[in-house]
Amino acid sequence: MHRRPRKHEEFTEWFNWVISNAEIYDYGRYPVQGTGVWMPYGFQLRRRILSIVRWELDSRGHEEILLPILIPEDLLRKESEHIRGFEGEVYWVTHGGETPLGVRLALRPTSETALTYMESLWIKSYRQLPKKYYQVVSIFRYETKATKPMIRLREVTTFKEAHTLHESFEDAERQVAEAIEIYKAIFDRLGIPYIISKRPDWDKFAGALYTIAFDTIMPDGRVLQIGTVHNLGQNFTRAFEVRIQLRDGSMDYGWQTSYGISDRIVAAVIAIHGDDRGAILPPIVAPIQVVVVPIPSGDREAIEKYAERIADKLASIGIRVHLDSRDDVTPGAKYYEWELRGVPVRIEVGARELQGKSVTIARRDEGKRVEVREEELAERIMELFEDIGRKLAEKAGKEMESRVARTKSLEEARRILAERRGIVEIPWCGSEKCGLEMEELADARALGSPLEKPEWVDGERCPICGGKAVTAMRLAKTY
Amino acid sequence: MHRRPRKHEEFTEWFNWVISNAEIYDYGRYPVQGTGVWMPYGFQLRRRILSIVRWELDSRGHEEILLPILIPEDLLRKESEHIRGFEGEVYWVTHGGETPLGVRLALRPTSETALTYMESLWIKSYRQLPKKYYQVVSIFRYETKATKPMIRLREVTTFKEAHTLHESFEDAERQVAEAIEIYKAIFDRLGIPYIISKRPDWDKFAGALYTIAFDTIMPDGRVLQIGTVHNLGQNFTRAFEVRIQLRDGSMDYGWQTSYGISDRIVAAVIAIHGDDRGAILPPIVAPIQVVVVPIPSGDREAIEKYAERIADKLASIGIRVHLDSRDDVTPGAKYYEWELRGVPVRIEVGARELQGKSVTIARRDEGKRVEVREEELAERIMELFEDIGRKLAEKAGKEMESRVARTKSLEEARRILAERRGIVEIPWCGSEKCGLEMEELADARALGSPLEKPEWVDGERCPICGGKAVTAMRLAKTY
Repeated sequence: MHRRPRKHEEFTEWFNWVISNAEIYDYGRYPVQGTGVWMPYGFQLRRRILSIVRWELDSRGHEEILLPILIPEDLLRKESEHIRGFEGEVYWVTHGGETPLGVRLALRPTSETALTYMESLWIKSYRQLPKKYYQVVSIFRYETKATKPMIRLREVTTFKEAHTLHESFEDAERQVAEAIEIYKAIFDRLGIPYIISKRPDWDKFAGALYTIAFDTIMPDGRVLQIGTVHNLGQNFTRAFEVRIQLRDGSMDYGWQTSYGISDRIVAAVIAIHGDDRGAILPPIVAPIQVVVVPIPSGDREAIEKYAERIADKLASIGIRVHLDSRDDVTPGAKYYEWELRGVPVRIEVGARELQGKSVTIARRDEGKRVEVREEELAERIMELFEDIGRKLAEKAGKEMESRVARTKSLEEARRILAERRGIVEIPWCGSEKCGLEMEELADARALGSPLEKPEWVDGERCPICGGKAVTAMRLAKTY
Repeated sequence: MHRRPRKHEEFTEWFNWVISNAEIYDYGRYPVQGTGVWMPYGFQLRRRILSIVRWELDSRGHEEILLPILIPEDLLRKESEHIRGFEGEVYWVTHGGETPLGVRLALRPTSETALTYMESLWIKSYRQLPKKYYQVVSIFRYETKATKPMIRLREVTTFKEAHTLHESFEDAERQVAEAIEIYKAIFDRLGIPYIISKRPDWDKFAGALYTIAFDTIMPDGRVLQIGTVHNLGQNFTRAFEVRIQLRDGSMDYGWQTSYGISDRIVAAVIAIHGDDRGAILPPIVAPIQVVVVPIPSGDREAIEKYAERIADKLASIGIRVHLDSRDDVTPGAKYYEWELRGVPVRIEVGARELQGKSVTIARRDEGKRVEVREEELAERIMELFEDIGRKLAEKAGKEMESRVARTKSLEEARRILAERRGIVEIPWCGSEKCGLEMEELADARALGSPLEKPEWVDGERCPICGGKAVTAMRLAKTY
């Protein structure tokens, strides 16, 4: 066995070690840069995380659809801000067989243009509104920055993009608020802590009025954007002539929002909850929630039968259980492997347990082992799942909190971000000029401001221009 | 209301009318030829059909994965037969932004090359075998033939491709047999009749030893290939150096199979079961299994409350039910709409039903209406679902059977295929030369032969060369 990388000290190595050795995601070997392969175990993890995403969207009236991957160049160019933001990183299909195509086709970088085009055909009246669509698809960005597994990809294979259409600006504003609630619910269920910022104007989505982002802090202190919500105003509906009849009989362009979550949600689950032994998956999304390991000693056959009975019992109440009955692998090696894969609960069954009609339960997060009588098992496991989910979220939340600092000095901000990273909040006058200078002086990226003006900036001054602070700016080293 | 096209007489128009008016699939309006949009209702239908496909694969040890869409040109060219079969219809990505790529990237036409490359990294020993992977993805073919919604697409959005790896030819042969059983189970559950043929050598998958295909007959008498199973031998594993340690310690290239199902499975469900009023969806995959329509008369409010109670009751036992309580649409217009969408059961609730604590049930397939007491409802609905599923399958099976003819004369074959299409079986000596001439003379496509030599060809002669018939050739007009 090779030395295991330590999560906090060598985060990049640790992350790569987990995703490849736990057979989650094969990255860096398939011969197209910035692409990876979801392996069976990882695919199941991804699928369960997506189930939560879908559930939260479906239960609030979103409808899943599927649009084509290819976007003709003229369609992509219709909204001028949008194409300016994306044209540097679009993959172009130029040939079918050896025939040059009449119009170049883009691999979708996102689907505002494709969907708004369809909406111009589908939606004619306020009676059809609001409309909330989403799809879960691959998107493509020819990244010039260094690529990273699940985090900065050229093929983002798990892009959940929601697109909504409304009859008024106010309805779109309400939708932005709903999207924020949906994303809170999703990340809360996964125990991923977040901070919500309104991105500065110079970093909003290309074609949006404004962008609100969910950020989390990775174990190395760098900030990862894990979700964005955009109010698109009428920018796309004007470009695509989505004219809608309103209640009063007049016609107006529709109002849109869009919001996205990517593979990064899976990366965050792995990175934030894991430890030096590997992943620790919240039971709600763990592909295997309980692994049963027979400890061979004494009456081997009886122990194996007993282990099987325990596994069947758990399966019968809907728990995702795996019986590891391999006889050419030691229990110790099995523990190592299932810990690495992040299985939240391990059950050991040996001669003593067989004798006492009990099992020994080891929880992955705290490592504690406890013996439980067979008849209590089901109940205890369910309690344990809840407790593990809650504790993982609490621990992650505290860790994140401890990494958000406040200061009034840009020098200190720069020092904090250089030393221990995280997020630094600093009073800000709100001007773009000062914001850009803050980025420069702190050698960091501007995440933007809290949605509400924080009380603590009252009476404070912008450290750049000395003007009155109207909000705080959040600065961080980012992915 | 426009005139509804008749399914058998104007099949193409009927199919287009159903998929667009039932809001299943928007085709021909998105500005890339051969692509379409899965609309919310269609997406749910597709999802439920895919659930059946996934269930049958998962329960036989297949593992879902996700490979990149982009395949570098050199990878795609490694297996020489394969690339010869596909290169005329590959979409090429040549630019990232305005930067020309060093190597052209293909949009996957299928994933044998991408996966076999990964298998060369993953699989080293017979102990890891058999391996059965699958993915459900978009594939791309720059079709030069006329495109058709769901049937001949440039972006096939629902390609389930399974890929297996084995330690011996015999194991791969057994896997072909398993794949056939899996496909039978899938199509049987959907009530789609099929005929299984070994494709002639000149029409096998590019890179395969042989191809076995599932064909069905569409309402216009033309044959639609709905599934294929390939024994790939060692063609790809040799090209990609997938060398595996065998039980006896020696090394050999692995043996592979692959098998695919596409959007055509959804097209077949709609086309085969529908009638002049629209789709008729088997309850097992219907997004809405029961629609409840209140008939306003007398105490409107009480009727609506009662309708709601009925709908809640059905929902509580897991039935996918929709209460259509729109008050600006007449019951007649509602019937029309839900019939078009293929909802298998309609429940009408009016003053009489309220009075008698009953409901009126109308089944979509036979149109029969029957009054049922509320307390019997759940049981009757479940019986009805089973009966509708069975009758749809029986009816489709009989229709298909009636369209398969036998003859010994090519002239008659040609006449039958010109007049009423379907499939014609004719004795065949098995030679490629005679097979190709049969296609020519019958003005039809050779589907290939039954998996077992049929008894009825005993003593018959090949109508081309006069040689002894060793099997039958199936001829048809195809999609």
